[in-house]
Amino acid sequence: MNFIKKFEQRLIEKDTILCVGLDPALPKQRKKNTIPSKFVKKSEDSEARLSFCLDIIDKTSDFCIAAKPNEQYLRGFTSQQHMKLTNSLRKEGLLSIYDCKLGDIRSTAESALYYFRKWGYDAITFNPFPGNMEEVVKISHESEPYLGIIVLTLMSNPEAEKFMRYAIVKNKPVYLAVAEDVKKYNADGCVVGATGHVTQEDIRLIRKITGNEKVFLIPGIGAQKGDPKKVIRAGGKNIMINVGRDIIYSKNPKVKAEEYFKMFNKVRKAD
Amino acid sequence: MNFIKKFEQRLIEKDTILCVGLDPALPKQRKKNTIPSKFVKKSEDSEARLSFCLDIIDKTSDFCIAAKPNEQYLRGFTSQQHMKLTNSLRKEGLLSIYDCKLGDIRSTAESALYYFRKWGYDAITFNPFPGNMEEVVKISHESEPYLGIIVLTLMSNPEAEKFMRYAIVKNKPVYLAVAEDVKKYNADGCVVGATGHVTQEDIRLIRKITGNEKVFLIPGIGAQKGDPKKVIRAGGKNIMINVGRDIIYSKNPKVKAEEYFKMFNKVRKAD
Repeated sequence: MNFIKKFEQRLIEKDTILCVGLDPALPKQRKKNTIPSKFVKKSEDSEARLSFCLDIIDKTSDFCIAAKPNEQYLRGFTSQQHMKLTNSLRKEGLLSIYDCKLGDIRSTAESALYYFRKWGYDAITFNPFPGNMEEVVKISHESEPYLGIIVLTLMSNPEAEKFMRYAIVKNKPVYLAVAEDVKKYNADGCVVGATGHVTQEDIRLIRKITGNEKVFLIPGIGAQKGDPKKVIRAGGKNIMINVGRDIIYSKNPKVKAEEYFKMFNKVRKAD
Repeated sequence: MNFIKKFEQRLIEKDTILCVGLDPALPKQRKKNTIPSKFVKKSEDSEARLSFCLDIIDKTSDFCIAAKPNEQYLRGFTSQQHMKLTNSLRKEGLLSIYDCKLGDIRSTAESALYYFRKWGYDAITFNPFPGNMEEVVKISHESEPYLGIIVLTLMSNPEAEKFMRYAIVKNKPVYLAVAEDVKKYNADGCVVGATGHVTQEDIRLIRKITGNEKVFLIPGIGAQKGDPKKVIRAGGKNIMINVGRDIIYSKNPKVKAEEYFKMFNKVRKAD
C-alpha cells in the first residue's frame, strides 16, 4: 500500500494528527532534555536510547498517528535496533518516519534506500538540494516494500530563508519550486515548518501547489511555540504535527501526548 | 590542530592528493560493484563491510592522503565499528572524511556532531540547504576534537544544476553564494564535482571566492570519467580527488590506487 493511503486509513482509525518526535539524547551529550538515568544505568548507549524510545511509544501510542525518530539522535544504532523500533511502532499501529534528510545521488542514494526498507520504515525525509527527487521517488516506490518520501520544503529556522525563500528559480522562490517537484515527481509529502518566518499563507501556497492528498509533516509546535490553529487551517486534512521534546522529556509523556491530541482535535473538529 | 593545517601537513608528508572512497555494497544489495564473497561468508553484514574497508585501507594507504567512507554504505555500523575504521585510518596516516551530507539544525545537528567527534572522524560533508552553516561550523570548531566541515557546493549530477546553478540568490547562482558562505563562516572546504556540467571555469570561480587554503574534495574521476587535468589546474594546491569503485572493486586495489597516485602526481608536477 502506498504511504498516502496508509496515512489516510490510519487517520480514520486513530483520529489523531499527532506525530511524536523520538530524539533520545544521552545525559553525557548535553545538560537539558536528556533521557532519564534509569535507562542509561542499565545498558550501553544504543540499548539505552532504544529502551527509552520503546517506553515512549508504549506511553503515547494511543494518541499518535506516527512517530518520527531523528537520525541525528539514533546514530550508532544497528540494523537490528532499527528493526526493533519499527516493529514496536507497527504493533502499536503507528506509522514510522525516519527523519534522515537523505540527500544523495544515484547508486549511493539507492544504497541508503536499501537499508531504510530493510529496517522497516514507512517513510523517510529527503533533502532536495542535489535535485534528484524524481530518481529517489522512483526507486522508493517501485521496490518492495513501498517507502514514502517526504521532502524538506520550507524549514522554519531563520537562516533557512536564504536558500529556500530568497533564492529564485524560474521566477519563483525555491520552496515553491520544490513543492512543484513534489507534485510532478509524485513524492508523498512535504516537511513544512510551523513557526518563525513561515506564514499561514506560505503553508496555503504549498498546499495549493501539491494538491490535497500529499502528507505534510509539520514540526515546530510544542517547545518551539508554533500555532497549531495556523497550521491546521492552512495545511488541510492530510497533516501530521510533530511534537518532540515537549512530550518525550516531560514528567508524564502520556499526559502530555493526550493534551496535544486533544488540543489538535479541538481545532480540527471546530473547523 | 585544524583540518586545513592537518591536510597541508599530510600533503607534504605523503605527497598525494588521492582520496579513496569507501562504499562497501553487499552482494544482496545490487548486482555489480559489490564486496568479494570472502568477506561476506565469514561474518554478518556490518562486520563484512568493516573488514572489506580495513583491507582496502591496508592495500591503498601508501598512495592516499585520505579516505571517504560514505554513510549510505555504512548504515547499521555501531559506534565501535566507526571507531575501528577511523583508528585504522589514523594508524596509516590517512585523514578520515565521513561523507554524511549533514543537513540539520540547532540541537539536532549538535547531536550528530557529538557522534561524529566520538567516532573520530577528521571532517564531515555538509549540505547547506537549511542555511545554518555558521552554526554548524562554530560547534564543530569550538569543541574538542576539531571537526572539519566540507560543504556541498556544486555537484556534478545533471539535476543538481536546478537548485545549485540556476537558482539565483542576491544576483548570483546558489553555488557561488555557498562558496561565499564557506569563506565567510570559515568552513574547511567544498565538495565540487569533476564531471558533467561542472566546467573548469566553475572550479576556478569557486576557488577565487574561497581563497587558496580551503580543501576541495572532488569526486567524479575514475568510473565517472572526469578529467584530472581540468580539476588539478583549476582547483589549486589544496585538493583531494576521490576515487571510489574504480579502486575498491578492481581486481587489484593496490595497483589501481598506485595508478591514480601516479596519474595525479604527473599532472601536479608538470604544472
